[in-house]
Amino acid sequence: MSNPQPLGGNAMPRFGGIATFMRLPGTTDPADLDVAIVGVPLDIGTSWRPGARFGPRGIRSESVMTRPYNMATKDAPFDALRIDDTGDVAINTFNLLDSVDRIEAHYDELLANDVIPVTMGGDHTIVLPILRSLTKKTGPVGLVHVDAHTDINDTMFGEKIAHGTPFRRAVEEGLLDPDRVVQIGVRATGYADDDFEWSREQGFRVVQAEECWHKSLTPLMEEVREQVSGGPVYLSFDIDGLDPSVAQGTGTPEIGGLTSIQGMEIIRGCKGLDVVGCDLVEVAPVYDTSGNTAHLAANLLYEMLCVLPGV
Amino acid sequence: MSNPQPLGGNAMPRFGGIATFMRLPGTTDPADLDVAIVGVPLDIGTSWRPGARFGPRGIRSESVMTRPYNMATKDAPFDALRIDDTGDVAINTFNLLDSVDRIEAHYDELLANDVIPVTMGGDHTIVLPILRSLTKKTGPVGLVHVDAHTDINDTMFGEKIAHGTPFRRAVEEGLLDPDRVVQIGVRATGYADDDFEWSREQGFRVVQAEECWHKSLTPLMEEVREQVSGGPVYLSFDIDGLDPSVAQGTGTPEIGGLTSIQGMEIIRGCKGLDVVGCDLVEVAPVYDTSGNTAHLAANLLYEMLCVLPGV
Amino acid sequence: MSNPQPLGGNAMPRFGGIATFMRLPGTTDPADLDVAIVGVPLDIGTSWRPGARFGPRGIRSESVMTRPYNMATKDAPFDALRIDDTGDVAINTFNLLDSVDRIEAHYDELLANDVIPVTMGGDHTIVLPILRSLTKKTGPVGLVHVDAHTDINDTMFGEKIAHGTPFRRAVEEGLLDPDRVVQIGVRATGYADDDFEWSREQGFRVVQAEECWHKSLTPLMEEVREQVSGGPVYLSFDIDGLDPSVAQGTGTPEIGGLTSIQGMEIIRGCKGLDVVGCDLVEVAPVYDTSGNTAHLAANLLYEMLCVLPGV
Amino acid sequence: MSNPQPLGGNAMPRFGGIATFMRLPGTTDPADLDVAIVGVPLDIGTSWRPGARFGPRGIRSESVMTRPYNMATKDAPFDALRIDDTGDVAINTFNLLDSVDRIEAHYDELLANDVIPVTMGGDHTIVLPILRSLTKKTGPVGLVHVDAHTDINDTMFGEKIAHGTPFRRAVEEGLLDPDRVVQIGVRATGYADDDFEWSREQGFRVVQAEECWHKSLTPLMEEVREQVSGGPVYLSFDIDGLDPSVAQGTGTPEIGGLTSIQGMEIIRGCKGLDVVGCDLVEVAPVYDTSGNTAHLAANLLYEMLCVLPGV
Amino acid sequence: MSNPQPLGGNAMPRFGGIATFMRLPGTTDPADLDVAIVGVPLDIGTSWRPGARFGPRGIRSESVMTRPYNMATKDAPFDALRIDDTGDVAINTFNLLDSVDRIEAHYDELLANDVIPVTMGGDHTIVLPILRSLTKKTGPVGLVHVDAHTDINDTMFGEKIAHGTPFRRAVEEGLLDPDRVVQIGVRATGYADDDFEWSREQGFRVVQAEECWHKSLTPLMEEVREQVSGGPVYLSFDIDGLDPSVAQGTGTPEIGGLTSIQGMEIIRGCKGLDVVGCDLVEVAPVYDTSGNTAHLAANLLYEMLCVLPGV
Amino acid sequence: MSNPQPLGGNAMPRFGGIATFMRLPGTTDPADLDVAIVGVPLDIGTSWRPGARFGPRGIRSESVMTRPYNMATKDAPFDALRIDDTGDVAINTFNLLDSVDRIEAHYDELLANDVIPVTMGGDHTIVLPILRSLTKKTGPVGLVHVDAHTDINDTMFGEKIAHGTPFRRAVEEGLLDPDRVVQIGVRATGYADDDFEWSREQGFRVVQAEECWHKSLTPLMEEVREQVSGGPVYLSFDIDGLDPSVAQGTGTPEIGGLTSIQGMEIIRGCKGLDVVGCDLVEVAPVYDTSGNTAHLAANLLYEMLCVLPGV
Repeated sequence: MSNPQPLGGNAMPRFGGIATFMRLPGTTDPADLDVAIVGVPLDIGTSWRPGARFGPRGIRSESVMTRPYNMATKDAPFDALRIDDTGDVAINTFNLLDSVDRIEAHYDELLANDVIPVTMGGDHTIVLPILRSLTKKTGPVGLVHVDAHTDINDTMFGEKIAHGTPFRRAVEEGLLDPDRVVQIGVRATGYADDDFEWSREQGFRVVQAEECWHKSLTPLMEEVREQVSGGPVYLSFDIDGLDPSVAQGTGTPEIGGLTSIQGMEIIRGCKGLDVVGCDLVEVAPVYDTSGNTAHLAANLLYEMLCVLPGV
Repeated sequence: MSNPQPLGGNAMPRFGGIATFMRLPGTTDPADLDVAIVGVPLDIGTSWRPGARFGPRGIRSESVMTRPYNMATKDAPFDALRIDDTGDVAINTFNLLDSVDRIEAHYDELLANDVIPVTMGGDHTIVLPILRSLTKKTGPVGLVHVDAHTDINDTMFGEKIAHGTPFRRAVEEGLLDPDRVVQIGVRATGYADDDFEWSREQGFRVVQAEECWHKSLTPLMEEVREQVSGGPVYLSFDIDGLDPSVAQGTGTPEIGGLTSIQGMEIIRGCKGLDVVGCDLVEVAPVYDTSGNTAHLAANLLYEMLCVLPGV
Repeated sequence: MSNPQPLGGNAMPRFGGIATFMRLPGTTDPADLDVAIVGVPLDIGTSWRPGARFGPRGIRSESVMTRPYNMATKDAPFDALRIDDTGDVAINTFNLLDSVDRIEAHYDELLANDVIPVTMGGDHTIVLPILRSLTKKTGPVGLVHVDAHTDINDTMFGEKIAHGTPFRRAVEEGLLDPDRVVQIGVRATGYADDDFEWSREQGFRVVQAEECWHKSLTPLMEEVREQVSGGPVYLSFDIDGLDPSVAQGTGTPEIGGLTSIQGMEIIRGCKGLDVVGCDLVEVAPVYDTSGNTAHLAANLLYEMLCVLPGV
Repeated sequence: MSNPQPLGGNAMPRFGGIATFMRLPGTTDPADLDVAIVGVPLDIGTSWRPGARFGPRGIRSESVMTRPYNMATKDAPFDALRIDDTGDVAINTFNLLDSVDRIEAHYDELLANDVIPVTMGGDHTIVLPILRSLTKKTGPVGLVHVDAHTDINDTMFGEKIAHGTPFRRAVEEGLLDPDRVVQIGVRATGYADDDFEWSREQGFRVVQAEECWHKSLTPLMEEVREQVSGGPVYLSFDIDGLDPSVAQGTGTPEIGGLTSIQGMEIIRGCKGLDVVGCDLVEVAPVYDTSGNTAHLAANLLYEMLCVLPGV
Repeated sequence: MSNPQPLGGNAMPRFGGIATFMRLPGTTDPADLDVAIVGVPLDIGTSWRPGARFGPRGIRSESVMTRPYNMATKDAPFDALRIDDTGDVAINTFNLLDSVDRIEAHYDELLANDVIPVTMGGDHTIVLPILRSLTKKTGPVGLVHVDAHTDINDTMFGEKIAHGTPFRRAVEEGLLDPDRVVQIGVRATGYADDDFEWSREQGFRVVQAEECWHKSLTPLMEEVREQVSGGPVYLSFDIDGLDPSVAQGTGTPEIGGLTSIQGMEIIRGCKGLDVVGCDLVEVAPVYDTSGNTAHLAANLLYEMLCVLPGV
Repeated sequence: MSNPQPLGGNAMPRFGGIATFMRLPGTTDPADLDVAIVGVPLDIGTSWRPGARFGPRGIRSESVMTRPYNMATKDAPFDALRIDDTGDVAINTFNLLDSVDRIEAHYDELLANDVIPVTMGGDHTIVLPILRSLTKKTGPVGLVHVDAHTDINDTMFGEKIAHGTPFRRAVEEGLLDPDRVVQIGVRATGYADDDFEWSREQGFRVVQAEECWHKSLTPLMEEVREQVSGGPVYLSFDIDGLDPSVAQGTGTPEIGGLTSIQGMEIIRGCKGLDVVGCDLVEVAPVYDTSGNTAHLAANLLYEMLCVLPGV
């Protein structure tokens, strides 16, 4: 049986047909997949602008232009792996805690198959139930985390679960291997001048955005690969790690962020790691009616496919 | 002491200064007020498009053009009553049930003063805690409810509290006087063909949008006044009762709705009723970047001020 | 086997999952259908603003809020008929004549099954190949045509095939039964003052927009039903028949058009006719970033489903 | 010599070529014209949202779709009259009083020819210098004034000249024949409950928007024609006379306004009057990125051409 | 008495409450302040796109996400200084010269207190009256001026006062210490090839944008600090100094500008100077409906607070 | 006779008057020109988003701010050369092959004069007929081609003519001197991993976007000048060569592209070459309602004028 393939532009115009991710069939049984694309349309963990619930739909709509071969890296993910869009998690949009449980259950069922989950968010809350489920199989994971924020608050408005807290919970629950965690692009303003110190105390490497300005991140990624290798790695990419000028359609933008090129360098720099899962979160399409942010997200997800083991 | 007055356009250009509702002072102690404008920036009870959390801010921004005298009705609410913007309820945006409790508590405190609350939503979930609080003072209220939806679902996605359920809860809790309830503008599609029958079974008058097409609602309001008078009345105006062509910035638009003129006729038609509170809900400004929906909402709220007892 | 059903909002939030029309399964074999929803993403027949190629995708995205039961008419199309989204025609976006042939061939194949085609355009050029195919089965059809333009030009820029010529071609080719044709909503400006006379000379009834202003079209539709009954009828609804204030996302808007309510009255007024096919064309979503025009179109298509024979 | 004609859609696609009004030549000497289209790109008389300086450019861009024959009235203005776009007044955007003088001087020079000026605004301040110039030839004029506001303030922020004062100045300066003045569509809120009384005291007929709701204005226009006939008449049409739902791109929108159909009825109802000039003002395109408001304005200007004497 | 503090996100959601700058109290008497945030909503000095009159309101709306601590520099301005939003200047939007006088008078009154003014524009005209007022206290100031334009025209359209002339007027009036002036980011096209020479003749350092491309401006700022130190310094930041891709919501954009990172480096590079006032001008929110330009401006203003003496 | 000059901002405000390119007269006979600005409003060769038909109009509208002198290079193109806007080609928007013939015929007629054509697209299909016409005079040309795509497909959807095929056709037809061709900025995804090899096999230099990241392209252009000099050179600049963050209003955006500064460096780096024609294509204004992409395009076209021989 041949691998699922994106519908080609010479078979159907790109603006035609149903919008699955990259126009994949959308019908493959997860048992027959190596990689499962999943949408998690949750945004009630968001503290400022909502709209990430439409992230998966927006990303799918803009993903239809992306072709199967990577002209820079020569990667051909659909030749190497069986990849398909498996649809969305049925979150409960009125109840954040229930949604977190539903996400975990959905991934538990999905990961009963031997697949790498590639997730379209949704706000960053969703990484917690994904890691809860994934680490049942893999044990604690290393983490490459791109973001404007460290997301290690203890609580937000008194709540333990929200889009600014998942990595503190993940540490507390033993889901991460703290020495193999790097946070890239964090910046801006905080409630205290030591907001990033908790991360460093856990053993994380924290690369503030200022360290990234005006240069290629390819050298940084050499160091990152060295740091996080040696075990399974999860890649969590919050689109707000990038600058608002390249990714305006997001919930909590911060100035002074990474360029989209640096975002690509980070993902390409993960090649060779034992990536066991990845996500792209916090795309809120209504704040970017041009579709550019969703378009960028779709292509970054494609770049993630290109660095998965076996490609 | 003179009544709080909107800052005039000859004292400060309308685009200048801090955007309180109609450029009222925003500093009056509720004990010195007859009417309290309140914002409830909650949208996690929304089932489709979020964004009503920015409703109060959007309405305030567009309210600054509205002048104090009503040229059609000659009403002068700021001459007759002491009215001010009292700010927003600090809802918990990660937890709907907690937010509902917080709203009720906020109104309990506010209503310890002898004020009529005029609320800027927020999604329609908020009417439940407002009614819970208000009816502690007034007893069961009559209701003039403008909406595309009856909002009398038993549950949504299994939840008892959401923006489609408040009036069923209100009936169950005895907050409404069912014979004095009218729902105007309901329409569109449902999960069953008897979705509106529950309302009718309670004794509500249900005026479907089709009954309103192509005509003035002034005659209808004569009947409504007769039906709902004889006790305290609450006016709950969901902006989606109006057609998407006049109110596109909302969460769950439905075609075939009321015109903005009909909306004005409904509010003006409430003159003479014992209005003890009112709200304008479901304005989601991000879906109407022209500001028109918020502008319309601000002016409908002004029309509500004009029909309050004592004006 | 039960009929295909829209995915319910309590099974998956409306913003979740793949966007087929009304969240129908999208997988039913046409042989098992009574009604086939089809998208024709063609816009190279457009003379002014392009963008209708994204019409089917835009309509699908906004159709997900529509529920199965019609609260005004009590119609339940999915109970009565087997209806599904069958995807799009693979038009050739570089060649209009080839696309017209491809559309005819696609419908020929589809109509080998006993289905009523309900089409999402695409510009109005597409009605010609649809009628060519359909009338092979039905013989000449009556026509209820809603539009700002009569679309009966002989040529445009020297071309016989374009979005302003299909109904002249249809007459020439014997696809229409001219005495059973009505054109509603035509208006605005022309190249000659007798632009509408050709239609009248064929026997069409031409109802100019001015005849529709300020009133219900329900009485008109009684006359229309009488005129067009007695044989198979096709319903072709160009969204620009409606006023730009209710349908701004279209290619050639004209002021002074019908209201969305009148649009609904026209469709509901077709109940009882032998409707053998229908379309909704000329939605260009990029000119209405709010999504309102696509939302309106989705709901008008739903209203069409409600008047099909057997519902 | 034949009259100047709009460039036809079969000679150049409508999206091609330089955007003059209706694609007229734009090069005719005013001495050879009966009607001069003029732009006045001034908006520093505006009290709320600026942007009407881009009104003429926006109207020109959207006027290119309008064809020469009026399908409802059968008028053919370009057959009957020599009409061309004569470009814009070089206003001084840093100085309102100097701009007012510049506009008057421009019209003085233009009206040295025997032309009817048809003006694209700009904010409503411009009507004062136009009337100052025009009445040098015609003597005091009757006025058909469509607007949400009476524009008869004595001062705004202490200034005698602004977009809310022109008609008081015009009365003071004897430019109007007060018994032949009608103001249609005024509404909303004011600084005093007698804001409209000054108009009535001068002898104006003031038709508040509420008198227009839900009906055709054709009967009203019969009365208006009777009132304002018997001398030269100026037609001044502020786009905010229409409802924000049909004309969102304007500086000071007010809810409850006229429909675009009513706007057309007013203009068509001026047929037979001795119209000596007309304008369409207050289009601010940036507040309506769809182009709809400018499109509407372009077509209303076309309707004005159709009622000029001699058509 | 503790310093005024921004309302925290755990006390009120960031989308709630009245939008003062950074949600400061907005009520502190200037006599109790070290720093006064001031809005000047003037845009009638603008030569191209208007809209900067909404700059202060737009900046306030987007400033609410900014937290009190600077994660890169560790600055804590609200701990060190008493800072509050003091509202807007009541400019006269119909008269530029009167507005300039009003601004000067407002600052005269404000600066009777010992405060540093931090101004939200408004167009760049406003810097002239601010400098007139400020230098009464400080004597001639050095200037760090970020802009696409030198703003040293003698006249515009014959006027001495406009947004392109303030720094020529400032030199003529002795408000600047010319050897301590630097203009950064100037570029694009001019009316003569020596448009920048006047600046250089006064002793200004002119850093054209091309000198800034592809590199950090931190080294430049070392030189700038050396040049402008030794006396009071004013920082005037026109958002159009940045590239349109990062700041599209402005009146006169020019390609090839600075990045937002370079903008941050310039401001951070002012640390240690005797900054006696600063402004951020030319934000026109309507040209950036995403809010990004206002968001950027709000954060640059925050960065300015971080470099004030005493922080 | 003096050269045609742009209308100055002190003669008419920039928002006033008819929008020709840079407000040039638009009336000069090509026989009296050295450089002819031409618009080609064609977009039916587009495979994804249409809208480039409005490119010429959008570019003209945004070009009005550009002044005659280049402040960086000191170039004064209007002093050195006779340049004017000669209007648009009357393409046939319903027929791509006919349009290609029409474009060639238009240029044949234009190039009967001794002018350099500077073209505003339109989609990239148009470069083929331009080269067909131009090379009749010049013989095969060298090419500096900026683009995200190599545009050397053999066919698209079976068609030989489309916006992805012009340079393969140009090679086949001997219009190019392959050793003097460079393609800069190509990137993203393809249908095969050797999509760029065909170019290289012809002798083209292919500079992938990754080679351009994080640096000035001035050194590259030294090499390019050396490569392509020695004969006539055509410059074809597809705006999608730049990153979507700087040029979102285009038909087929790809992430990871060039900055606008790099775009300027490429054009400025062409100084000294024997440029016989140039174009700027694929601007689709509706996808960038801010006007930024058209503004950028207008200024890049101005930069092209500055490098023409004789400036």
